[in-house]
Amino acid sequence: MLRVGVLGATGYSGHELLRLLLNHSQVSIRKIVSESCKDRAYSFVYRNFTSICDDVCMELNWDSLTDGIDILFSALPYGLLMKHLKSDMLDNIQLIDIGVDYRFLDKHEYEYYYGMEHESPELADRFTYGLSEWNEDQIRKARHIANPGCYATAIELALLPLIKENLISLNIIVDGKCGLSGSGRTLTLGTHFPEANESVKAYKLTTHPHSYEAARGIELFCGKQPSITFTPHIVPMQRGLLITAYAQLKGTANYERIRTAYDKYYEGRPFIQMLKRGIYVETKWVRCSNMCHINFEINERTGMLVVTAAIDNLIKGAAGQAVQNMNIMNGYPQDTGLDLIPACI
Amino acid sequence: MLRVGVLGATGYSGHELLRLLLNHSQVSIRKIVSESCKDRAYSFVYRNFTSICDDVCMELNWDSLTDGIDILFSALPYGLLMKHLKSDMLDNIQLIDIGVDYRFLDKHEYEYYYGMEHESPELADRFTYGLSEWNEDQIRKARHIANPGCYATAIELALLPLIKENLISLNIIVDGKCGLSGSGRTLTLGTHFPEANESVKAYKLTTHPHSYEAARGIELFCGKQPSITFTPHIVPMQRGLLITAYAQLKGTANYERIRTAYDKYYEGRPFIQMLKRGIYVETKWVRCSNMCHINFEINERTGMLVVTAAIDNLIKGAAGQAVQNMNIMNGYPQDTGLDLIPACI
Amino acid sequence: MLRVGVLGATGYSGHELLRLLLNHSQVSIRKIVSESCKDRAYSFVYRNFTSICDDVCMELNWDSLTDGIDILFSALPYGLLMKHLKSDMLDNIQLIDIGVDYRFLDKHEYEYYYGMEHESPELADRFTYGLSEWNEDQIRKARHIANPGCYATAIELALLPLIKENLISLNIIVDGKCGLSGSGRTLTLGTHFPEANESVKAYKLTTHPHSYEAARGIELFCGKQPSITFTPHIVPMQRGLLITAYAQLKGTANYERIRTAYDKYYEGRPFIQMLKRGIYVETKWVRCSNMCHINFEINERTGMLVVTAAIDNLIKGAAGQAVQNMNIMNGYPQDTGLDLIPACI
Amino acid sequence: MLRVGVLGATGYSGHELLRLLLNHSQVSIRKIVSESCKDRAYSFVYRNFTSICDDVCMELNWDSLTDGIDILFSALPYGLLMKHLKSDMLDNIQLIDIGVDYRFLDKHEYEYYYGMEHESPELADRFTYGLSEWNEDQIRKARHIANPGCYATAIELALLPLIKENLISLNIIVDGKCGLSGSGRTLTLGTHFPEANESVKAYKLTTHPHSYEAARGIELFCGKQPSITFTPHIVPMQRGLLITAYAQLKGTANYERIRTAYDKYYEGRPFIQMLKRGIYVETKWVRCSNMCHINFEINERTGMLVVTAAIDNLIKGAAGQAVQNMNIMNGYPQDTGLDLIPACI
Repeated sequence: MLRVGVLGATGYSGHELLRLLLNHSQVSIRKIVSESCKDRAYSFVYRNFTSICDDVCMELNWDSLTDGIDILFSALPYGLLMKHLKSDMLDNIQLIDIGVDYRFLDKHEYEYYYGMEHESPELADRFTYGLSEWNEDQIRKARHIANPGCYATAIELALLPLIKENLISLNIIVDGKCGLSGSGRTLTLGTHFPEANESVKAYKLTTHPHSYEAARGIELFCGKQPSITFTPHIVPMQRGLLITAYAQLKGTANYERIRTAYDKYYEGRPFIQMLKRGIYVETKWVRCSNMCHINFEINERTGMLVVTAAIDNLIKGAAGQAVQNMNIMNGYPQDTGLDLIPACI
Repeated sequence: MLRVGVLGATGYSGHELLRLLLNHSQVSIRKIVSESCKDRAYSFVYRNFTSICDDVCMELNWDSLTDGIDILFSALPYGLLMKHLKSDMLDNIQLIDIGVDYRFLDKHEYEYYYGMEHESPELADRFTYGLSEWNEDQIRKARHIANPGCYATAIELALLPLIKENLISLNIIVDGKCGLSGSGRTLTLGTHFPEANESVKAYKLTTHPHSYEAARGIELFCGKQPSITFTPHIVPMQRGLLITAYAQLKGTANYERIRTAYDKYYEGRPFIQMLKRGIYVETKWVRCSNMCHINFEINERTGMLVVTAAIDNLIKGAAGQAVQNMNIMNGYPQDTGLDLIPACI
Repeated sequence: MLRVGVLGATGYSGHELLRLLLNHSQVSIRKIVSESCKDRAYSFVYRNFTSICDDVCMELNWDSLTDGIDILFSALPYGLLMKHLKSDMLDNIQLIDIGVDYRFLDKHEYEYYYGMEHESPELADRFTYGLSEWNEDQIRKARHIANPGCYATAIELALLPLIKENLISLNIIVDGKCGLSGSGRTLTLGTHFPEANESVKAYKLTTHPHSYEAARGIELFCGKQPSITFTPHIVPMQRGLLITAYAQLKGTANYERIRTAYDKYYEGRPFIQMLKRGIYVETKWVRCSNMCHINFEINERTGMLVVTAAIDNLIKGAAGQAVQNMNIMNGYPQDTGLDLIPACI
Repeated sequence: MLRVGVLGATGYSGHELLRLLLNHSQVSIRKIVSESCKDRAYSFVYRNFTSICDDVCMELNWDSLTDGIDILFSALPYGLLMKHLKSDMLDNIQLIDIGVDYRFLDKHEYEYYYGMEHESPELADRFTYGLSEWNEDQIRKARHIANPGCYATAIELALLPLIKENLISLNIIVDGKCGLSGSGRTLTLGTHFPEANESVKAYKLTTHPHSYEAARGIELFCGKQPSITFTPHIVPMQRGLLITAYAQLKGTANYERIRTAYDKYYEGRPFIQMLKRGIYVETKWVRCSNMCHINFEINERTGMLVVTAAIDNLIKGAAGQAVQNMNIMNGYPQDTGLDLIPACI
């Protein structure tokens, strides 16, 4: 039994982590840490946990954080972990960071995207990028994981086979759509129900950090630097993330070669499903699960490839992939605690 | 391992049954029967089952229906099962009917509510009413279950302790609210997205059959005949059912006596949670689970008791309670396959 | 041309007021006052006003508030107007208060519901209750209006004819449902999209002030004191309010007498429509309009009358009725600027 | 007073037409034609019209269709008008076709997109393409209008100034998002509430006819043939359409030159608003109005221009632009009956 701690437990990713970990046969939850809800029962904050988890949220104490646990999941907002994490804390435990602080850290990019200086860049090398299906060997050996972002996960899963096999141009446009849970639990006017419902918008049209992360991820696994123009959109729903990617086919690439490339990398992968030709990818088919659905078509008139991929932003895009990585790191079957059948209704 | 068949597998209740049964450790699904989708892969009808259940839906053949299975779940629209069910089919198998055909069957009431004559009233006596928490002893001995309706489940769970303990008047008003999945998968103008979204309505203001069922259920368990005025409403969401019940307190009934009555019947019941004083019942806290949440307040100015109860209409109100009943009938722990943590987001 | 000011212009009621007043042929908007958005263009706060109203929001200055205008609409949160309003301000202008501070003011009730002492109770007598259809004669003579609350409007419109004609018992249960705009623009966890969407809840089960207001309104127009048990619910939609009222019929009351009573008071009223027998009231049929739809059924088994009424909470429940009252006060046709065809899609 | 007929009056575009035309000062509605709802009161079909328009829907009789009216709006599904329209009918009346049958008709393309042979291609030349802001001079002289499609309207309005001024490459990617009303009133599984809500999907990834229409529109107004890769998406909301267009800047094009181009064509246009730099386009800001909002950003890292444009698919994308065209054809101010302030809440 792994002794587990969850940091940032009352955010949406933290909530999903607890839902997954409480039903995971190999772990025992020892610490539920939430600065904003300290001293409150978890089931008071999230009443769906009534009688399921009535533990009290602990204050965040960095000094004793790693005591008594084997693995820590961190789901903090950007900028907090990098301020407080110390090298010896990493020595003591496995750490899976759902946050952004150690994902392909580049000091200048970090300042560009997050508007603050990174305070522990020297620790970044100890983190392994946790795109489960593409970095399994490294994850197995790792003790500290930088868990991928939700959009970056979908973009990389959708594009990596094609770039790896040299089938598409590296100038790629990605148009993303995500439900409101992707914006987190912090109150903002943009996420106030009467403002968010019944509307769709593009935001951060050119400055969303996941375009950087996805490009670095592709570079890591393919050795090529793509140019990604990425525009995220907010659509009025709870969960779900869909990306629509556009790229020119290269050389002799055609429908069959594209499909063969996907099959090569994804056949037998329990969490990645290539849909049959002509079946539309929809976020509901993966909702509340760790699944990623992918499909594509070729626009014969313009020669453009259009790929769509859907994940649940909170699960495969956050907590689920984190648990998948924990499973890999600890030698459990990858789908332990993740055999969730999507709840399409 | 119980060998299981599901009849009406492509309706929403059937879909939820499959989601539950596929993750149930004690069953093996042998027959997925759907007349409307026969010969199609289940994962073609519901793409969330891609690679999870690609079995082909079988044609409905009444003659061989019970062959090779131990237990059959029927989730057919009203009027079908009562036309085709035969006594010897019941001899062969356990049957849990999620439909309405054998719930407190009264020939005249059946015609009143469903506009057709019941063709097998003689079989009704073989069915046990499956309100799990209130009829456990009978269910344990039963082989055929009439599984309660969604609204009836919530109404009975909310009112039974109070009527049993003689704390409220028997003239009760129940105002119900349910999401659109409660209307099923059949296409209607009222469930067309642009017609249903962003609107709330009352319907069947005086003729919803669940008021009859709830009254009979209360009579069965308390020996008293309540008068229930029930008005269902459709609210624009997928799942979830909330009832708000109004009744006059009797005699010396007060807050404490009400709470004591609830605790007497529900303490230790894993699927029924009395929320703490002042905490609002919300459907999201039970979504995608077999939970029922209940709370109440007393209007000191009018002496009226107001009880609210929430369930997931497709789970505790249909497929979940059916699995709970299967567990009871077969000696499994009640929560086998039902340890679902509600998905509030 | 009436010179108009709007106080609290950036709340949702203020926003609707501006939408109505800008298309009203008899008014000229002179002051748009918003403390929270002062010095910002109205079209910056609400981008739907881009190029339609780019005026800058003025700071709230109580001393000069009434200068240069003939009529002021106040849409402030409770507790502000009663603190600052002075008798001589009332002398200078017409005032329509969409807020609650002067509606059937009773000092003790005000403290009970709002938790603060009322500071200008002596001004309450100068306000006329603005239920347009029932108080038209008084409104015509009035200069200061306490505009009814949204729930109170629907409850009173639904019940007044029946109580006036002595057709129902005075013990009445009202179950209300309203969209999220009813909760205003202030950020709260309960109105955060991922918390509010896909859920329905009852709240303030016994303490919503509109039950008091509705009872006083009924007393004012009928001379009888009803006992109203009122429970509001939040349903996941933008706008729309539906009430479902339950009362016992009295004496010889029956379907025809009920309908006759409604016709007696509402025939020819442009904003109140009795739907035909059997047609369900739905909030979408009145959305974005000043309409109120009403219908009813009698439960023959329990003798209970069930009345449903729907309004747009922001229009007939706030800004629209305010404009209707302005029209009455100033001798304009009641529907000037209010000929809005509901937007059901 | 123009005597008006509406054909296909009970579809969503027809409904919006009636809402607009009933409040239009220069028209008198003479014929409401609906084959599917013939002999029913319009207010029975759409209860929001109760007491506003209780006229009975007429049967569709092609022989007498043009009798007694000056202008006909047709909102029929594809394939009907082209089957029945005759040259002499066009002689008698003005006709504004909201349908697709005469938009840039090419027989082969029509068969490709709609799977049927066009039966009256010889009439196509009599139709003028009704993109109001770009074809005003021709519309003024026209008697028969092919009203643009919703997506085509947004795409053309967003791209025309840039292509006209030679600022962007002609290889353009357009990612579209539209609410469910865009799918019409016909019942389908994909528009059934529990299937459509809480999900987003791409569909017709490479075969949506509006990409053809937009390309022809651009050719008409700029003399250049763009290559448009267009993917529409359905998002769970009632109304609203957003397009996100991606194109490479050409030569010396930069932020200022782009904005100057937009201003050149759109300054003073009441229905097209360029938002200020940094303000996000959102569908709610144009909801229930004839407005089009546009904004853009340049991705400095990839040199890609990203343009977003939003309209209400039923108004500027259908009924509103039709009324605007009627106004132009008949010498009324363009905004007659269209001074709708968007309903963002």
